[in-house]
Amino acid sequence: MALIVQKFGGTSVANPDKIKAVADRVLSSHQQGHQMVVVLSAMAGETNRFVDLAHQMQALPDPREMDVLLATGEQVTVALFAMAVKERGYDAVSLLGDQVKIHTDTMHTKARITSIDTELIRGHLKAGKVVVVAGFQGVADDGNLTTLGRGGSDTTAVALAAALAADRCDIFTDVEGVYTTDPNVCATARKIDRISYDEMLELASLGAKVLDIRSVSFAKRYKVPVHVRSTFTTTEGTWVVEEDKAMESNPVSGVTYSKNEARITISKVPDRPGIASRIFTPISNEGIVVDMIIQNTRNGNLTDMTFTVPRPDYKKAMAIVEKTAKAIGAEKVTGSESIAKVSIVGVGMRNHAGIATAMFKVLSDEGINIMMISTSEIKVSCVIDEKYTELAVRTLHDAFGLDQAPKKAAKACTACKTKGAAKAKPAAKTKKK
Amino acid sequence: MALIVQKFGGTSVANPDKIKAVADRVLSSHQQGHQMVVVLSAMAGETNRFVDLAHQMQALPDPREMDVLLATGEQVTVALFAMAVKERGYDAVSLLGDQVKIHTDTMHTKARITSIDTELIRGHLKAGKVVVVAGFQGVADDGNLTTLGRGGSDTTAVALAAALAADRCDIFTDVEGVYTTDPNVCATARKIDRISYDEMLELASLGAKVLDIRSVSFAKRYKVPVHVRSTFTTTEGTWVVEEDKAMESNPVSGVTYSKNEARITISKVPDRPGIASRIFTPISNEGIVVDMIIQNTRNGNLTDMTFTVPRPDYKKAMAIVEKTAKAIGAEKVTGSESIAKVSIVGVGMRNHAGIATAMFKVLSDEGINIMMISTSEIKVSCVIDEKYTELAVRTLHDAFGLDQAPKKAAKACTACKTKGAAKAKPAAKTKKK
Repeated sequence: MALIVQKFGGTSVANPDKIKAVADRVLSSHQQGHQMVVVLSAMAGETNRFVDLAHQMQALPDPREMDVLLATGEQVTVALFAMAVKERGYDAVSLLGDQVKIHTDTMHTKARITSIDTELIRGHLKAGKVVVVAGFQGVADDGNLTTLGRGGSDTTAVALAAALAADRCDIFTDVEGVYTTDPNVCATARKIDRISYDEMLELASLGAKVLDIRSVSFAKRYKVPVHVRSTFTTTEGTWVVEEDKAMESNPVSGVTYSKNEARITISKVPDRPGIASRIFTPISNEGIVVDMIIQNTRNGNLTDMTFTVPRPDYKKAMAIVEKTAKAIGAEKVTGSESIAKVSIVGVGMRNHAGIATAMFKVLSDEGINIMMISTSEIKVSCVIDEKYTELAVRTLHDAFGLDQAPKKAAKACTACKTKGAAKAKPAAKTKKK
Repeated sequence: MALIVQKFGGTSVANPDKIKAVADRVLSSHQQGHQMVVVLSAMAGETNRFVDLAHQMQALPDPREMDVLLATGEQVTVALFAMAVKERGYDAVSLLGDQVKIHTDTMHTKARITSIDTELIRGHLKAGKVVVVAGFQGVADDGNLTTLGRGGSDTTAVALAAALAADRCDIFTDVEGVYTTDPNVCATARKIDRISYDEMLELASLGAKVLDIRSVSFAKRYKVPVHVRSTFTTTEGTWVVEEDKAMESNPVSGVTYSKNEARITISKVPDRPGIASRIFTPISNEGIVVDMIIQNTRNGNLTDMTFTVPRPDYKKAMAIVEKTAKAIGAEKVTGSESIAKVSIVGVGMRNHAGIATAMFKVLSDEGINIMMISTSEIKVSCVIDEKYTELAVRTLHDAFGLDQAPKKAAKACTACKTKGAAKAKPAAKTKKK
């Protein structure tokens, strides 16, 4: 008998019929003798409806009241779900974030879980009930309701699984699992059977939308096996688990991309200590997150500074930077919204030298110019012209053998033939904020 | 500076524009220096939507989960309202039933308030905030959410006013106040300026829908002055207050009616001790509330038993009674769904003899047959054929001078000319369950 936490997203509980189908699915595990804790999101569309209502009341809705409003979405689903279970002759109980006592900090609309009481849940499980917990919500120490931000139900589920020392956490979603790359871009994309927490963290932060990044952090920290799978089929999905030998044999596990970035370059900046702070402080003061930053040294004491910002913040960032450029005596500011970031991720990179170099060669062979490079221990990202995104993804995917089943892939990797070559060091200085 | 509790019903907060209008109205009092506690219902239509959703999940929705579901309605309104106040530059805070700590018993979907903590509200009021409380909901000692049943927001408001020792409780609704009778039936119906708690209790229990009966009980017990008035005008409504001399000068304050009843008669019941219990226990076991009961003695030891039940329960009650009749050897069971209960109410009855007799005469003069009679100290009810309802209401209304302004009415009352006559005793034995 196992203790299983199962999370179903908004599309899985979008209407009464879908809620009933999910109840059937949960009960089939319950009938096998497992203790079931179910975490639900709001019915698809509800959160947007509430956000729209809020904006009709207040130009910038009060975050505390926004949380009071948003929390009702999950409250509706858990009550309906508990009814569905009871209608089928089984016992169930719905619990809200403040009933469980999912403690969070006070950062309304993007709170972080600080601790979870498990006593109430354990009592209900012991009594044979299906426990239905409202995802996405918690309670701050001041008694105010909080929400965890979009994707927060994933975090609720994994945090609950960690707190309850559950045997596993199933994340049910509308895709079959985690793919080697976006199947809409690359026809040879394959579902990944097993992926390490670290790889999943990189993929999530690089734009893969299947799992919220905070939930992956929780899973990693508390070693919760997470099974990402489809609500609408019974096939195995992707297990997100601790790294093992098999994973390391493949240099690259996935290729991902993001078209949500824009590039800004300040040319001929007089290079002196504190200049980076002069440029970036006004930007972050406006809540704009800078991603990649590259500084190229020119002749003399002049330098070029290039960085990326989220595309929706591009115009705002440009206005700020142009003001700064004038103040510090830079020559000019240029920028582009038509860029993309393409990344390869894999724990196997640690043992396979030359992966970055191989990536650069694959892109170069296709005539794709690399504008910026950023690397981590298990990831290489390149900023390229947006129009080459799909070509780059497809070519990298197949060049690193991701179109092949895992065992063959290591051999089929045509990109990294140069075994034993020194691990690539990108030419430009790069750092990631 | 007064402390004022104001309650706005579902039609008053039916959409964002109406919520903003209510916020303006509350702020106009706040700006005069009053401490404002606002109690809100769910947006009109929301509760029905939830009930419909629940019935799609479970034939007989679980009451605990029903409360979790229903409580979201008020939660949405209070959050939106607090945003609207803040948008206007004032401070506000929304509070849910379990945050205030509106303690109730555990009778889900029809819980009763047992006590209310005022500390949190007082703190927010002291800080200058408009306090926005979700009506209709509370929390049981076991931590479960409860709701107070339809009309429960009235009860929340009056109970809060009592707990806070508020100067008054304004109940805003979609009518101008309490009327001498239903204006849709009687063109000469007048808005009542002042009415006593006891009269309001009788009117509420007899079908007047303007104020929930439990809220009137609270108001009476804690002497809370209640002002029933329209959301959509600024004219004075009806004050529900302690009885005074002026009220007693009019024998009748209001005429009301109910078409929600049905009559059942068991003929020739062998009359022996315990027979009433044999008949009524199976009915109340099914949750059917019996209203009026009349027992007529026939020749010998045979008796006829007539009583009324809510019309929606008529068929169910008939089936039960037919079974019982067979078991106890009664001759037959007859019944009718086309009856109505017409009532006159007034604290002045205590001092004016012959009011009941006068009522019987008014009805008889119009050729209306009286089937059943029930009296209390300040009320006389007659069950008549449904088709005469409007005629009876109009005739009684004008005969007791309710078409006239209060002072003139005492003189204009044509019905009770027989001053000093003995207080009417209805011929049949009547008792009210």
